[in-house]
Amino acid sequence: MPNPILARLIDELGDAVSTEASDLRAAREDRSGLVSPATPLAIVRATSVADVQSTLRLASASGTPVVPRGAGTGLAGGGVASEGAIVLDVSGMRRVLEIDEANELAVVEAGVINGDLNAALAPLGLWFAPDPASRAISSIGGNIATNAGGLLCAKYGVTREAVLGLAVVLADGRLLRTGHRTVKGVTGYDLTALLTGSEGTLGVIVEATVRLRPMPAGEPVTVAAVFPDVTAAAVASARVTAARLRPAVLELIDAAGLARVVEYLASGALDGGARDGGSHDGGTVDGSAVADRLAGTPLDRLEAGEAFLLAQADGTGAAEEAAAIAAILADAGGRVTTSTDAATGERLLEIRRSMHPALAARGRVLIEDVAVPRSRLPEMFRAIERIGAKHCLEIPTLAHAGDGNLHPNFVFDEPAPGEPDVPLHVWSAADELFRAAVALGGTLTGEHGVGVLKRRWLRDELGDDQWELQRSIKAVFDPAGILNPAVMFEPDEPAHSPAVGRDR
Amino acid sequence: MPNPILARLIDELGDAVSTEASDLRAAREDRSGLVSPATPLAIVRATSVADVQSTLRLASASGTPVVPRGAGTGLAGGGVASEGAIVLDVSGMRRVLEIDEANELAVVEAGVINGDLNAALAPLGLWFAPDPASRAISSIGGNIATNAGGLLCAKYGVTREAVLGLAVVLADGRLLRTGHRTVKGVTGYDLTALLTGSEGTLGVIVEATVRLRPMPAGEPVTVAAVFPDVTAAAVASARVTAARLRPAVLELIDAAGLARVVEYLASGALDGGARDGGSHDGGTVDGSAVADRLAGTPLDRLEAGEAFLLAQADGTGAAEEAAAIAAILADAGGRVTTSTDAATGERLLEIRRSMHPALAARGRVLIEDVAVPRSRLPEMFRAIERIGAKHCLEIPTLAHAGDGNLHPNFVFDEPAPGEPDVPLHVWSAADELFRAAVALGGTLTGEHGVGVLKRRWLRDELGDDQWELQRSIKAVFDPAGILNPAVMFEPDEPAHSPAVGRDR
Repeated sequence: MPNPILARLIDELGDAVSTEASDLRAAREDRSGLVSPATPLAIVRATSVADVQSTLRLASASGTPVVPRGAGTGLAGGGVASEGAIVLDVSGMRRVLEIDEANELAVVEAGVINGDLNAALAPLGLWFAPDPASRAISSIGGNIATNAGGLLCAKYGVTREAVLGLAVVLADGRLLRTGHRTVKGVTGYDLTALLTGSEGTLGVIVEATVRLRPMPAGEPVTVAAVFPDVTAAAVASARVTAARLRPAVLELIDAAGLARVVEYLASGALDGGARDGGSHDGGTVDGSAVADRLAGTPLDRLEAGEAFLLAQADGTGAAEEAAAIAAILADAGGRVTTSTDAATGERLLEIRRSMHPALAARGRVLIEDVAVPRSRLPEMFRAIERIGAKHCLEIPTLAHAGDGNLHPNFVFDEPAPGEPDVPLHVWSAADELFRAAVALGGTLTGEHGVGVLKRRWLRDELGDDQWELQRSIKAVFDPAGILNPAVMFEPDEPAHSPAVGRDR
Repeated sequence: MPNPILARLIDELGDAVSTEASDLRAAREDRSGLVSPATPLAIVRATSVADVQSTLRLASASGTPVVPRGAGTGLAGGGVASEGAIVLDVSGMRRVLEIDEANELAVVEAGVINGDLNAALAPLGLWFAPDPASRAISSIGGNIATNAGGLLCAKYGVTREAVLGLAVVLADGRLLRTGHRTVKGVTGYDLTALLTGSEGTLGVIVEATVRLRPMPAGEPVTVAAVFPDVTAAAVASARVTAARLRPAVLELIDAAGLARVVEYLASGALDGGARDGGSHDGGTVDGSAVADRLAGTPLDRLEAGEAFLLAQADGTGAAEEAAAIAAILADAGGRVTTSTDAATGERLLEIRRSMHPALAARGRVLIEDVAVPRSRLPEMFRAIERIGAKHCLEIPTLAHAGDGNLHPNFVFDEPAPGEPDVPLHVWSAADELFRAAVALGGTLTGEHGVGVLKRRWLRDELGDDQWELQRSIKAVFDPAGILNPAVMFEPDEPAHSPAVGRDR
């Protein structure tokens, strides 16, 4: 006899409900490297607000946990199956409901892919600015649920700044509309901002009214530079921002990261054989032509230990700004090239965007996501080096240097049966990384979210008072605790490894 | 025998506590025109976080309401005395604690005046972007408590986008620190954003970490234009934004508003005799030189009924952008002048900023603050005209046209004793204005906040579900309901005038 909740789900939602083993399996992972050991009850593939409401009404009535899931491209395990949960997949809700050119806004369903919206906007000279590296495959609902960052935040802001209003289905199935269609609006508390970054724990985002921008005028100008080591590159990047320059992009890759990317590109992996199906970077790069790709850039004659810094200036003053950046980087000891050719600029950005698939192609990846005040970047890189040496780990790292947001990466083998999903020494190193970032005035997660992977540190960063307050807010929205219960807050029983103590 | 709570306050806070009649009287009003009939228990002039904590601990223990108050420049009655309340004045907390140039942030106490911070930043080439018209007299804590808007929001964002972190004293006296010192950070719910715009109902903001920007390069270029009527000006402003231009400033003043400003300037009021002491516009204008002030602008030969549109472009592409704007305005029927001279530009902006003092000099002013999608501005102006005619009221109006944010103003005489504070027909007209704005896809308040003046409409705009949710969030932070209890939410008993029905 089938589970009675499942029977009612099927009764109400029919073909939208799947219990196929392959579907259940797929919902156990995202792009974080995590594979949840849990078996969900079912997958519901919602294609309408009504589907989402029906699912939540049933879940609420029966106390069944619900894991909202979009494109499945998260990097913190925020949308992976938990035991016995209904995985509520909204990736099929992908209609662009409205593009309002005069008011520079769009209304989209949650499953619309970031890159697809931008493709629709480009002919109109408009642009949705949030630019996570995953933009070709990640959904706007997911971007909002994690308050996604990306490459352009120092200049163009994080996702929150591009969200005007939301439609959210609450835990009990009611539909709530927050926000407005205007640039300004202060009627009551800013629930739109509160829901942005709430990782599916307060409600299920089904629709968003997002702010658009005019596309920057002219062609961007790209400055690429290679430095003898990562500290020199970090110092140079801090000098750029200290000079009051505000490039659209300012990305840094360390030597270990650079080696992996070059290796990946050389393997032709982007042609299609890789785990990411070549889509993670959104490009159509010819993988056999690495030399072409690197030609004319400082990357075509790399020395051991060298680190890479990539800046892009856009808008009316792009050429002057790029020239000023190039001068600073050269003065700081960089081997610099400047390119006014947009195709070359895009090629260089693709190298940056292929970092994650390059690592993922070699094994499981645990991506850290700390942020520090950007002047502390050199210190944070030194801390990473120290922690890596201590734990005998290579930690290839890239940074959104303009934001002080670093992604130190741990790559490890698939765990053997019975082994922990992430090796304990990796957790120990991650714990030290987190503490180093906070000690530098930083934060645990700049843009990926807490998910299940980082919840063990949430309370340490927030402190007990704020942690309790946040749990109480969760309880206001979701009194029965059915919405993504494994995410953000740790279960009440102490579940984390003994290596990770709470010492403050 | 003194009130025992007062005695304990004095015991603990000494000279910081005042019960002087003049102090109690001053705390009954802000710049909204409202004069509260309530008598507060006392004023506490906090000069430290510890003062604020002591006050709240006492208030919490005794169930005494607390009204947090900054510079007292609010426009919605959000910081005015309520009956028996402790008015907690943080305007004396005005230390700039830190300016971090490399990371483009400042840490300030809540009472720091917006203009004072900007004066300290200017020599460093840095800038705190939130720019309410009151910037010379309003405090950053108040800017944050109301999520203040201003003249530059379409291009530079609202206050929320400039707040990285807060220190807030909770209702029970605990100090809470939210947010971070980095551009990105998604560790837990965004309480910084939730507290921004919460109008002292969730906690008392004592300190803020704010984001700074490099000052725009070069001189701004100002375009001023006069149109035959306000609809023509509104249509022209919509064309500017529809052309994908993004001026820093785009302000519109209707004929009635313009007449009042010109009259005010001609009276020499800015020289010091006016209610605002000449400080509201932050300028040092020679009031006797109106002709000079208007010379070379389209305002020096105004025809009856004409409306004014003011645009300012800044940054590297300012000249080109201004030229494009000027061409659009001329094409739309405007009498246009362009000025590359910064002093002229500032003079024109001062005319705009003097609108509120010009009206306040003539009587009580109730400023509405609706926002509509900017393409609907012409319709909203027609609605204002219709509502004014119906109620036999002149409604001088200005608009932040780039944001679709309108300030229709009601000016009326001081009420006689026993008369309602705001005449009933003014409330009726305001009610119709609000409904017209919402019907056009807009909102009740774009930037001033709900305060006590607009709480009667809060539930109508939010709807019952969201209103209840917001009240529950308030209860999480302030279970005893002592924080600014008269603000935002209406008391449970029906208190609003019979003319203002809730019809949805």
